[in-house]
Amino acid sequence: MAHIRLPEGMPGIVGPLAFRPETAKPLLELAEVLLRGPNTISSAEREMIAAHGSYRNECDFCQLSHSAAAAAHLNGNYAVVEQIKGNPEGADVSDKLKALLRIAGKVRQSGKQVSAEDVARARECGSTDKEIHDTVLIAAAFSMYNRYVDGLATWQPREPEAYREMGEQLARQGYVRDRFRESQKATQA
Amino acid sequence: MAHIRLPEGMPGIVGPLAFRPETAKPLLELAEVLLRGPNTISSAEREMIAAHGSYRNECDFCQLSHSAAAAAHLNGNYAVVEQIKGNPEGADVSDKLKALLRIAGKVRQSGKQVSAEDVARARECGSTDKEIHDTVLIAAAFSMYNRYVDGLATWQPREPEAYREMGEQLARQGYVRDRFRESQKATQA
Repeated sequence: MAHIRLPEGMPGIVGPLAFRPETAKPLLELAEVLLRGPNTISSAEREMIAAHGSYRNECDFCQLSHSAAAAAHLNGNYAVVEQIKGNPEGADVSDKLKALLRIAGKVRQSGKQVSAEDVARARECGSTDKEIHDTVLIAAAFSMYNRYVDGLATWQPREPEAYREMGEQLARQGYVRDRFRESQKATQA
Repeated sequence: MAHIRLPEGMPGIVGPLAFRPETAKPLLELAEVLLRGPNTISSAEREMIAAHGSYRNECDFCQLSHSAAAAAHLNGNYAVVEQIKGNPEGADVSDKLKALLRIAGKVRQSGKQVSAEDVARARECGSTDKEIHDTVLIAAAFSMYNRYVDGLATWQPREPEAYREMGEQLARQGYVRDRFRESQKATQA
């Protein structure tokens, strides 16, 4: 049972977003810019950074929904998404994404852990200042979203199958509030 | 030196906000709603929750700027702000704020650490669902802001005196972007 009375039948962050629309607005706008806005890092890669951090933070809702969104961007390739969560250095992804995932993994623990060497490695793989900035902020933002979802003890299905349609909708329609709510209604219908 | 090229002379989060206005907008709107929006928890108390988490995360810029903002709301009472950072249970604040600070301290470590007992204690002290929600989200949001500021290795003055005027301006004028920028210019003038 959640720590506060949330609207029923809404998994993970969806309940608290409906409970407090004033904070939902910037929270969803931030996710939209970070994960779907114009960027030289693909949305698939950014969703993988989100899934990786959420997996390490053991937040079921966030890791499963963003794994599904990443896989949706990759035409259903869940295998590579599982790789970046468990063992990013051995995953079948670019050296650049591996370097960015290393930075993200450090940020998840503490911003102070990111070293000049981590950043130099990302640059050697072709990362720009904006890509490094966005990687740090995605990892930082999921340090927030994960704590928000778990700190309120929200209801979170644990079966990956429960997130497939949500992942498709997040990938295609995005995070801004009205769309997200519609997609939730569609899921429940 | 920061990990990416940021505008010069801007401390802490101010540099990254200027570097990436698209993400600055929701980041500042979230701070505005959480710390200054209509609420039954005073802005002084919300700034103390922010300062407490940032202090425990050892983020100089965030803990000193939000300590200064809290003190500004309290007519310069820095003594109580220092108490809630070092030893909240022994601080000269309400039992309700102590209970909320305990929840916030748990969220900072992991959302999963918040227990039904922590929430029950807050309720016994008169906390509402919205107050518990906002406490969790403030603590979660500063888990983000702290990692953002430190993950990019931003320049952060360490002298509390450097933050007094900023604290006054945050308390009086708030976080929304244009105002914040103006206040920064005013500080530098």
